Amino acid sequence: MQVCPFCNKQKNDFYLETENFAVIYNISPILPGHSLVIPKQHKESLFELTDDELAKFMQLGRTTAALLCKVFNTNAFNWAIQEREVAGQSVAHLHMHVVPRRLGDMVNPGDWYQRLEKIESGDIDTYERFRLSEEVLHTLTQKMKQKAIAFGLRK
Amino acid sequence: MQVCPFCNKQKNDFYLETENFAVIYNISPILPGHSLVIPKQHKESLFELTDDELAKFMQLGRTTAALLCKVFNTNAFNWAIQEREVAGQSVAHLHMHVVPRRLGDMVNPGDWYQRLEKIESGDIDTYERFRLSEEVLHTLTQKMKQKAIAFGLRK
Repeated sequence: MQVCPFCNKQKNDFYLETENFAVIYNISPILPGHSLVIPKQHKESLFELTDDELAKFMQLGRTTAALLCKVFNTNAFNWAIQEREVAGQSVAHLHMHVVPRRLGDMVNPGDWYQRLEKIESGDIDTYERFRLSEEVLHTLTQKMKQKAIAFGLRK
Repeated sequence: MQVCPFCNKQKNDFYLETENFAVIYNISPILPGHSLVIPKQHKESLFELTDDELAKFMQLGRTTAALLCKVFNTNAFNWAIQEREVAGQSVAHLHMHVVPRRLGDMVNPGDWYQRLEKIESGDIDTYERFRLSEEVLHTLTQKMKQKAIAFGLRK
C-alpha cells in the first residue's frame, strides 16, 4: 500500500478513464454522485501537467459532469480544485471535485463547499463525515460504469 | 449596454486575454486577487465550448493562477465553476473563479465559498457584500496588467 490514497486506486475503482486520468467516486460524498478526477500518476499540483495533459484532464472533467448530469437528471454541477493545503487540499494528489446539483439538495445551496472542507480536513465525529463502506463504494462504481456504457461515454 | 454584465466588459477591463477568453478582476472580490476567467462571446455553459476552446479556457485559467500566485506571493489557490443557477451561478455567462489563498486569510479557510455564494446571490446588506468602485476596479486591473507584463505573461 502506498501512502497516497489516490495512488492506491486501481483500474476497478475507475468508472471513467483515459490514458493518464481517471474518475473515482468519492468515499465521503457530500452529495450523491460526488466524484473526483485524478491523474493516474502521482502529481500534486495543476502546474505539473503539460498543456496537453491539462486539456485532457479538463475534457475528462467535462465528460464526468455530463455523465453525472445524465445519471442524476440535472444540468447543474459544481467543479472545484483546491491547490495546496492552505486552499483546502488535504490529499496531496491533484484532484478535481465534480458534484451534480439539484434544486433543494441542500438547505443552503452554498453549504456543499463548507462540507467539503470539513470532510477534507478530516473533521470526523460530525454528521457531515459520512463515509461509504468499501463494498458500497464498489457497488456505486460499478453502477456508474454501467451508466457510462449506457450513455456511450465508456466502452 | 447589454443585459449581461460580462458582455459589457471591454478590452481595457481585461488584465489577461487570448483570442476568445479574457480575465477580469471581480468587482466583489471575496479576497484580494479574486478574478474571473470568461469567454469573450456570451456562452452560458461549459458544454458550449469545443474541446479546443475548453483547453484554451483552462490554460488561461492556469496562467491566471500562476500570475495571482506571483503577485500575492503564494502557491495556493481555489478554482471553481458553478454550472447553472442551482449550483450557484448567478451571472448566466460562463465564468471560472480563481482566488489566491494565503495562510490565515480567513478565520475558517472554507468560508470563501460561502461568501462567494452570498455575493453571487446578490445578498446585499451583509458585511460580505464588498463592492469596489469602478475607479478602484480600473486601478487594480491596470496594476494586474503591469504585473502580467513584468512576469512575462502578457505583452
